[in-house]
Amino acid sequence: MRILVFNAGSSSLKFGVFDIPRGAGLAQMRQCFKGSFDRFGAGGCEYRAGLDMPKPARAPHTSLEAATLAVPDILAEAGIEDIEAVAHRIAHGGAEFTGATELTAPVLDHIRALTPLAPLHNPANLQAVDVARKVWPDLPQWGVFDTSFHLTNPARATTYAVPKAWRDAGLRRFGFHGTSHKYVAFRAAEELGRDLRDMRVISLHLGNGASACAVAHGQSIDSSMGMTPLEGLVMGTRSGDVDPGLFGYLSRQMGLGIQEIEDALYRDSGLLGLTGSADMRDVEDRAAKGDSDAQLAINIYAYRARKYIGAYAAAMGGLDALIFTGGIGENSPSMRRRICDGLEFMGLKLDHDRNMAVDLVGQAAPQIQAYGTRVNVLVTETAEQAMIAREVAMAMSAPRAEALRIPVAVSARHVHLSRDAVDALFGPGYDLTPDKPLRQKGHWAARERVNLHGPKGTISNVAILGPLRDRTQIEISRTDGFALGLDAPVRHSGVLQGTPTVRLQGPAGQYDSDGLIIAARHIHMNSKDAQQMGLTDGDSVSISLATTGRGLTFGDVLIRVSDNAFTEMHIDTDEANAAGISGAVEGELSGEAILRAT
Amino acid sequence: MRILVFNAGSSSLKFGVFDIPRGAGLAQMRQCFKGSFDRFGAGGCEYRAGLDMPKPARAPHTSLEAATLAVPDILAEAGIEDIEAVAHRIAHGGAEFTGATELTAPVLDHIRALTPLAPLHNPANLQAVDVARKVWPDLPQWGVFDTSFHLTNPARATTYAVPKAWRDAGLRRFGFHGTSHKYVAFRAAEELGRDLRDMRVISLHLGNGASACAVAHGQSIDSSMGMTPLEGLVMGTRSGDVDPGLFGYLSRQMGLGIQEIEDALYRDSGLLGLTGSADMRDVEDRAAKGDSDAQLAINIYAYRARKYIGAYAAAMGGLDALIFTGGIGENSPSMRRRICDGLEFMGLKLDHDRNMAVDLVGQAAPQIQAYGTRVNVLVTETAEQAMIAREVAMAMSAPRAEALRIPVAVSARHVHLSRDAVDALFGPGYDLTPDKPLRQKGHWAARERVNLHGPKGTISNVAILGPLRDRTQIEISRTDGFALGLDAPVRHSGVLQGTPTVRLQGPAGQYDSDGLIIAARHIHMNSKDAQQMGLTDGDSVSISLATTGRGLTFGDVLIRVSDNAFTEMHIDTDEANAAGISGAVEGELSGEAILRAT
Repeated sequence: MRILVFNAGSSSLKFGVFDIPRGAGLAQMRQCFKGSFDRFGAGGCEYRAGLDMPKPARAPHTSLEAATLAVPDILAEAGIEDIEAVAHRIAHGGAEFTGATELTAPVLDHIRALTPLAPLHNPANLQAVDVARKVWPDLPQWGVFDTSFHLTNPARATTYAVPKAWRDAGLRRFGFHGTSHKYVAFRAAEELGRDLRDMRVISLHLGNGASACAVAHGQSIDSSMGMTPLEGLVMGTRSGDVDPGLFGYLSRQMGLGIQEIEDALYRDSGLLGLTGSADMRDVEDRAAKGDSDAQLAINIYAYRARKYIGAYAAAMGGLDALIFTGGIGENSPSMRRRICDGLEFMGLKLDHDRNMAVDLVGQAAPQIQAYGTRVNVLVTETAEQAMIAREVAMAMSAPRAEALRIPVAVSARHVHLSRDAVDALFGPGYDLTPDKPLRQKGHWAARERVNLHGPKGTISNVAILGPLRDRTQIEISRTDGFALGLDAPVRHSGVLQGTPTVRLQGPAGQYDSDGLIIAARHIHMNSKDAQQMGLTDGDSVSISLATTGRGLTFGDVLIRVSDNAFTEMHIDTDEANAAGISGAVEGELSGEAILRAT
Repeated sequence: MRILVFNAGSSSLKFGVFDIPRGAGLAQMRQCFKGSFDRFGAGGCEYRAGLDMPKPARAPHTSLEAATLAVPDILAEAGIEDIEAVAHRIAHGGAEFTGATELTAPVLDHIRALTPLAPLHNPANLQAVDVARKVWPDLPQWGVFDTSFHLTNPARATTYAVPKAWRDAGLRRFGFHGTSHKYVAFRAAEELGRDLRDMRVISLHLGNGASACAVAHGQSIDSSMGMTPLEGLVMGTRSGDVDPGLFGYLSRQMGLGIQEIEDALYRDSGLLGLTGSADMRDVEDRAAKGDSDAQLAINIYAYRARKYIGAYAAAMGGLDALIFTGGIGENSPSMRRRICDGLEFMGLKLDHDRNMAVDLVGQAAPQIQAYGTRVNVLVTETAEQAMIAREVAMAMSAPRAEALRIPVAVSARHVHLSRDAVDALFGPGYDLTPDKPLRQKGHWAARERVNLHGPKGTISNVAILGPLRDRTQIEISRTDGFALGLDAPVRHSGVLQGTPTVRLQGPAGQYDSDGLIIAARHIHMNSKDAQQMGLTDGDSVSISLATTGRGLTFGDVLIRVSDNAFTEMHIDTDEANAAGISGAVEGELSGEAILRAT
């Protein structure tokens, strides 16, 4: 599929054409054209075109609109034909747009309403869409949002501790650079031959803008930019994190207003504010010659990045891979060293020679960690435009499953025990007594019960489900976690790495075990049903429970396919309460919202 | 020494009387009286007095001044006599006050000038000083500052990436709760029987205000509060970290001004803003009953604290001990668990029973880590007033060394090599050739040289100092570090834990070694000189180089005493340049500024 991608800014327009073979890996996306217009002004603009991007020439276009209108002739001249869709990078998609979205009129209205969240970026993005709709009226226009990848961030990461009225007015963390973080995270997993869903990854996008992103089990769980692209790391001209008390101080001491302060935080801060130059190459050269402002700027830059690595490793319970991308991340071996030095305590150390020899030609993603160390460190060029094309190509070719009604079962709290645990709780060699059979073949609830003890409280008479498992797993609701005083993560069954320890109490003794989780909602599905619906193991779908007392759609429901499964959706008691479920219900799977692991 | 301590706020006055035996450990400070006035209003205030602090009674005092004036009679009635000094907690000491300071008129003027940095706190502190000076005209009045402990933070931690004009106007990070963090860090080391200078510690002060502090090798190197007490962790009513873009958004969308926003961030945010209650006990109880706002607030609170632990471990290159203090840190086992769960990857795990059994009677500091884990976790009640008394007692009894002139030697970059390194660089069994003797007996510069290679560049012909050492150590200047592209920490000789690796190149081969440092300035001193000046090994002093081209005082110069040392101060080339030193100079040790390890 051939896609034309636009990335429009207030004073520039970048565009590219990509061929995305069906089912292609990330390293197989092929770019067939590349162009950019820069610095629109009364006298025209700079223009570069061609895959090798030669030195800029002058072009007569004085605006984004004029430049966009010139693209068809440029493509025709280059012999680029058969474009199937136009894809636009949109900076801010708010809380609504979770993936590539066709830009229909209502969608565009919705995006326009998000302008207060991205006053500098969204208007330019939308202007390019308007022109492109006129130029290519017969092609579908799609949007891919910088924020979408981060919409899986849990509320603990997105919520500011501010008054409710402000949060109701839309104040929350979003995160940006999502397309870049998603691309490099999946690219790193591909390079390592691992499944991203089994990994904990930190991506550092260090360009003119800069952000860090924590990707746990395939999903973004936190990122350093917040409601706006001002929060987080030090950037070329942006401050990153500052004390919110700064506004009051500058207002009282220097008579500055909000707009002046915000403008300076966006445009006169960061490396520029610290050194007079926003270009890290320049700053590094001056530092090596003894310029103490440049030295301090480098120290601050690296120190803040290193702290985010520590923070996100703590957030994920450890780290498997670190990825550098963006101009600075790709090109500065000494900045990579400064950021990583001191992280040996978490198994992260660079190799001097590999770090010096990084070559990114041909979408390479070289590893630069020291031999024998635990954390993989990779460098790769980000490919936001190619990823935008791929997201759109995948969305356009996604299968449309037929709507299907699926029975919903509410899982109350329960435990699965190991042999060790049964021995400790009920006595060596004890056999649990199967009491009631469950709908999944061969599974049963035992007559025995256990108590759970946490630092806040105790939950008694918790059901035990059989048969025994290799590892003990304790599945509770969110509210149970607060009653126990333990922070149980939402996990799929069996993914127990880094889960909290809880004390189980039985008649014969106690047993401390990790494996405390809130079970992620999922659908057991037999192979026949799956085949009929065009679904495969690992897909995620949306399920609407419109028939219940409090209608609700659950997104991101994992499909688990096995031959003999009884097709059934499992949710926990909190979810059942949220949906107002009492008695037997069915959910409706909607074909619109199937997500496949990229 | 008996000290009366005042901690005055805008609506409260706390006071205590402490006996501090000369040379006493932290667990030996004895409180002999305790009192507090709260909630001044037209109808009087609440009053509590006595070491057991009974339930509050009513008192007629309507203001801080009136309450302060009542203290002499209260003490007389309790038979408390022979007070030798009055000590005041001062919230903000700016960049100037590094320790307990006698509150002379010029000092008070200076503190008054800092009011814009702490408009809510410093005025109340100063009002109590004014009254106390009238009430006890014959007693010395001392100030101990919440900010002092953090003045050792390096510039990379204290500098915001904002325009120079703002930084020149005083915008920088300071940090607060310093007395508390200092006390609990030293208390933890005392409890563990270790020297704090060999440890990397994180202190979490979780009270109504909350902050985290990283204490590396005995010094605060970073803390979560910034220029104001608004930055950092979620607090009772304060937001902690937010996106600086929040101000512009609230201004444009809701028409709010800076003062309104700041007031709400101080008073209507944090736990209060998230749940309607600023009291964690209340929030925890509601969460256990299913209140989702309370559950989210707890998740945010713990998540942010856990991320700071990760960030500070990364900043220090690892972690040896974590300390919980403040009302929430001392009293909530489930919050301690939530914060610590998931940190097993850095060797930190709590023991369920120890965590549940914490009892802090009698200044206890119980350990609660799981048996056999690497990071010690302690809980202890903070003792800010006692620590204030102790700081003042120590300052009042510090010996006054006579001024002494000390020769200054400038250390150019050099390396100390191990046997392994010589073998690799010059060939197996090679003997270095002593060329020039150094002033320290038995030490010499070798005829051989080595090259250093870093990710940014190479430094050739670096001197080798003999004799051989057990570990290779490479001493460079700050600018050398930027020429190499490596972040060398400022360390004392031999303290090489977590230092960067650099490649050494000799005629026979290369050798990659950690041990790259910028040598902390220090004074070699023979025992006789030390005795004469009343100094002991490990003391820190200030040295003035007033005779040089660019006069400068170096604070925090470590004294290293040995029997045969040639008394001499060592600084590096950057420091020599800063001081404009050329040729032989002497420094003057001033007796005013001797610091002893607490």
